[in-house]
Amino acid sequence: MARMKVLNGPSIRRMPIYLYWLSVMQSRGDEFASTTQLAEYIDLEPINVRKDIALTGVTGTVGVGYRVGELIEGIRRYLGWDAMRPACLVGVGALGRALLGHREFQEAGLQFTCVFDSDEQKIGTEVRGHEVLSMDVMAETVKAMKPEVAVICVPAEGAQKVVDDLVDCGIKSFWSFSNVSLRVPEGVFIQREVIAGGYAMLSVKLAQMKRK
Amino acid sequence: MARMKVLNGPSIRRMPIYLYWLSVMQSRGDEFASTTQLAEYIDLEPINVRKDIALTGVTGTVGVGYRVGELIEGIRRYLGWDAMRPACLVGVGALGRALLGHREFQEAGLQFTCVFDSDEQKIGTEVRGHEVLSMDVMAETVKAMKPEVAVICVPAEGAQKVVDDLVDCGIKSFWSFSNVSLRVPEGVFIQREVIAGGYAMLSVKLAQMKRK
Repeated sequence: MARMKVLNGPSIRRMPIYLYWLSVMQSRGDEFASTTQLAEYIDLEPINVRKDIALTGVTGTVGVGYRVGELIEGIRRYLGWDAMRPACLVGVGALGRALLGHREFQEAGLQFTCVFDSDEQKIGTEVRGHEVLSMDVMAETVKAMKPEVAVICVPAEGAQKVVDDLVDCGIKSFWSFSNVSLRVPEGVFIQREVIAGGYAMLSVKLAQMKRK
Repeated sequence: MARMKVLNGPSIRRMPIYLYWLSVMQSRGDEFASTTQLAEYIDLEPINVRKDIALTGVTGTVGVGYRVGELIEGIRRYLGWDAMRPACLVGVGALGRALLGHREFQEAGLQFTCVFDSDEQKIGTEVRGHEVLSMDVMAETVKAMKPEVAVICVPAEGAQKVVDDLVDCGIKSFWSFSNVSLRVPEGVFIQREVIAGGYAMLSVKLAQMKRK
């Protein structure tokens, strides 16, 4: 199992929100973004904004703030979003469909180059501009197209098999929305999303509010 | 703006993963779960597993571990998932559809009691067992049904208006998948999900791997 330490999870997860607001500011012609402004937009303490931005290596000027264009570039460079990254997606259910249509991924350089499903009804149809391919051709297609990332949207039961097959094809990084921990060999990384995790956060906060 | 400190975000977000593995253990008849076992399943250091579980107040026995049933109950109680919580959902696009069909929410006590969309094509149709209602009847329906949580899946452009309307109807907690920061008055809470945030994590780890 690959256990990589990432110390700044919450900060990294906030980066797309910075990018969103910075692009809003850029489109209305703002040259500078102050820490206070960003803190207000992102609903965070200014000290945390400074810490987040420090990760990217971009520095601001006291009393003026960060150059909007420079900060956008800095964040994109930090995330590696300044280059296109080809990806495959497996499992074109409602969630897979939503991800294929997520506009923001284009800005993030995430480019779906092949899409697979095992459902005969879906194979050969077009979803958000992508032809759905059969899982039977997954191995050969992935070996040929060499996507850097595999996005896993299959039900929990089938997820491990799909990941094993893709590891055999040379995929080294996975973004999994399957509600289960998946085993990968050393040197392969899985970023796991737990949709219910956000609801857990909300639930704990609801309990806090009631106690007040 | 409501700024509530939540110190244990990553721990809380992991709770559904604990519940998943504990239910797997329970269904195969395991009476105890050791820290080491859970650490292995969840891909985490044992010390962090102990810290996570400490939040729930459940205590284990040295050399044996936690009672599986007791830990499941403890986590559910900590999250407030031991009671049903009625919710409305606004925006039945691909993501809204995926959330309506997410099996795990039933276990979390999240129960969608009304579903809205502004698309004439969708209004009156049934999605995952829910009749899609017009936004025109949202205010009166929400006032009558009194959902505790509103799940927001509308595009960024329309999200603030929907939230404002729901706040006027008395909704005090939101779970938002709209890719934008939303303003709410004091005493109202928004849990914001940023889908691209997970991809940001993956991207930074990809960069780390390449550097090695």
